[in-house]
Amino acid sequence: MNNLPRTNTARLAQQIQFVIELDKLKTVLRQTLLTDASRRENSAEHSWHIALMAIVLAEYSPVPVDVLRVIKMLLVHDLVEIDAGDTFCYDLQHNDSKSDRETEAADRLFGLLPADQAADLRSLWEEFEAQQTADAVFACSLDRLQPLLNNQQTQGGTWKANGITCDRVLQRMAPIAIGAPELWEFVQQLLEDCMTKGFLEPEREETQGMSGGA
Amino acid sequence: MNNLPRTNTARLAQQIQFVIELDKLKTVLRQTLLTDASRRENSAEHSWHIALMAIVLAEYSPVPVDVLRVIKMLLVHDLVEIDAGDTFCYDLQHNDSKSDRETEAADRLFGLLPADQAADLRSLWEEFEAQQTADAVFACSLDRLQPLLNNQQTQGGTWKANGITCDRVLQRMAPIAIGAPELWEFVQQLLEDCMTKGFLEPEREETQGMSGGA
Repeated sequence: MNNLPRTNTARLAQQIQFVIELDKLKTVLRQTLLTDASRRENSAEHSWHIALMAIVLAEYSPVPVDVLRVIKMLLVHDLVEIDAGDTFCYDLQHNDSKSDRETEAADRLFGLLPADQAADLRSLWEEFEAQQTADAVFACSLDRLQPLLNNQQTQGGTWKANGITCDRVLQRMAPIAIGAPELWEFVQQLLEDCMTKGFLEPEREETQGMSGGA
Repeated sequence: MNNLPRTNTARLAQQIQFVIELDKLKTVLRQTLLTDASRRENSAEHSWHIALMAIVLAEYSPVPVDVLRVIKMLLVHDLVEIDAGDTFCYDLQHNDSKSDRETEAADRLFGLLPADQAADLRSLWEEFEAQQTADAVFACSLDRLQPLLNNQQTQGGTWKANGITCDRVLQRMAPIAIGAPELWEFVQQLLEDCMTKGFLEPEREETQGMSGGA
């Protein structure tokens, strides 16, 4: 980082340093392709997309959600990937070590902020991870729905590239059944449609834990 | 767009179509470089960055702001670029036609949504453009501050590439003096510091409207 000039307060210096650090999330690539299939999506633009989805789709939560809390949660939910990287959701092996890597990342990243703000944003991240509140479950539903749409738009993009079958996608999308039941019906129809069109394969007879390419 | 399966309601179909359309903002490039100078920033990840800045820096607004409204405004403020493209802020010629192009884009893009949501998000975009409310002025301050930080981190990135001098940057940053006065002091120090380091040139004797390269 280029040195910054002195700020009036140590608090502002910490906040500006955090803001500059955020930029790195733009270089963390996910497996998902953009809808035009031109490149992989990064975690910063993904976070923007689902934050805006929270506004547009809030009415589908079966219980009222606090939209500001949901948006804040979604804006910070992937920050830990700056240090821990994005772990492909269907990669069972690397998901084993994910929690430890991400906790360490959270210590460093939220630790850049003044203590009150660090505690506030970290607790939102932890709430998202724990999936025990209505806000967190709805937020998670959007985090699952967006790559589904992108995979549909790219004719099976990540699924086809990694041999992911419909049963595994359905399992991954399960939070939507609770967080946004009306959307769950749409998700099931979409997956049926993707199978009909050959964008997605049905369950294989012998499912192996994690196929080499996935 | 790949055809989507039928949804239960026309309302959901409109919302999903809007959500899919959003993806295109990830392909709209701004002049600003990422802090690691690896590539130009796109408008979707930029919007994420400043929405998160609204949470961290809200305390610097001299009047209380409604953080949810500010965030919503920032999440949608660049949407029109999907059709109108990003207009470089120092490009006087193309800024003349910007307003018409963006109004047309707003008609189409917000028009994808159900009427109530279209009206809600469009009015937030119009409020941001009009700069007549505290929420809009604070939101604008963040929209100006973020590229400033990225230009400082990239040793003058966009400024050097386009021959932009300090007087023009100061003029561009002016909303920060109103929207976040404590940050304005920091901005001035940062620009002084950038001039000392040779990242930014002071005002030229003969300033020309818009230099060829800028």
